[in-house]
Amino acid sequence: MNEAADRAGGSPDGTIDVAFGEDGLVPAIAQDVDSGEVLMLAYVSREALDRTLETGEAHYYSRSREELWHKGGTSGHTQDVAEVRVDCDADTLLYLVDQTGGACHTGHRSCFHRTIEGEHVGERVFDPDEVY
Amino acid sequence: MNEAADRAGGSPDGTIDVAFGEDGLVPAIAQDVDSGEVLMLAYVSREALDRTLETGEAHYYSRSREELWHKGGTSGHTQDVAEVRVDCDADTLLYLVDQTGGACHTGHRSCFHRTIEGEHVGERVFDPDEVY
Repeated sequence: MNEAADRAGGSPDGTIDVAFGEDGLVPAIAQDVDSGEVLMLAYVSREALDRTLETGEAHYYSRSREELWHKGGTSGHTQDVAEVRVDCDADTLLYLVDQTGGACHTGHRSCFHRTIEGEHVGERVFDPDEVY
Repeated sequence: MNEAADRAGGSPDGTIDVAFGEDGLVPAIAQDVDSGEVLMLAYVSREALDRTLETGEAHYYSRSREELWHKGGTSGHTQDVAEVRVDCDADTLLYLVDQTGGACHTGHRSCFHRTIEGEHVGERVFDPDEVY
């Protein structure tokens, strides 16, 4: 066993010390806890992670708006967080979530609704013109 | 429909123009195409994406080694890429893969084998001391 690597980011009480980048952020993947569908990727600050763990609803840091972002605060499409996982290097998070409505501002369930060839593969679940 | 947003990153032939960052990279999530398990997150350069599409095996850019990285080139734990998806902003990729062995250098199937509380939740599928 590679014990050193396996414990990367560990702290004395067992909680993982997340390795935030120079910009204070780490990427976080949101995955539907039931279906396994990957819904989105966004960035998380220390404050966003703390708020997520405190409230049980996914929070991110909006790099465009430069502020804490409570996902679904405007649209109502919140994410109840069942579990937060950390990768081996402790520099990426995985939010396992119960997604209300759709994760994507385009009205799709998932932001990953296109192949790189431009084929539409995702399910549209709401009309963004009626939500935003 | 939010057509403008839906077409973000599109080019005339339908292929998505990926919005590489200032460092020339975008994050890429690797997900098991059969089980839906999220295996890892790594970064992809233009060259890594082109090599992935040309060869059908996942390539990334190693930020620590500062070089093109053919996943599994050393360990044999390659990823056959069934599909590449792009998110709504075209700044994150999703590789749907058939993973040989384990994705994680610690011997786990997935790099996300710990909760943030430090609980071990992942499956170890190989002994890294025998592979590296």
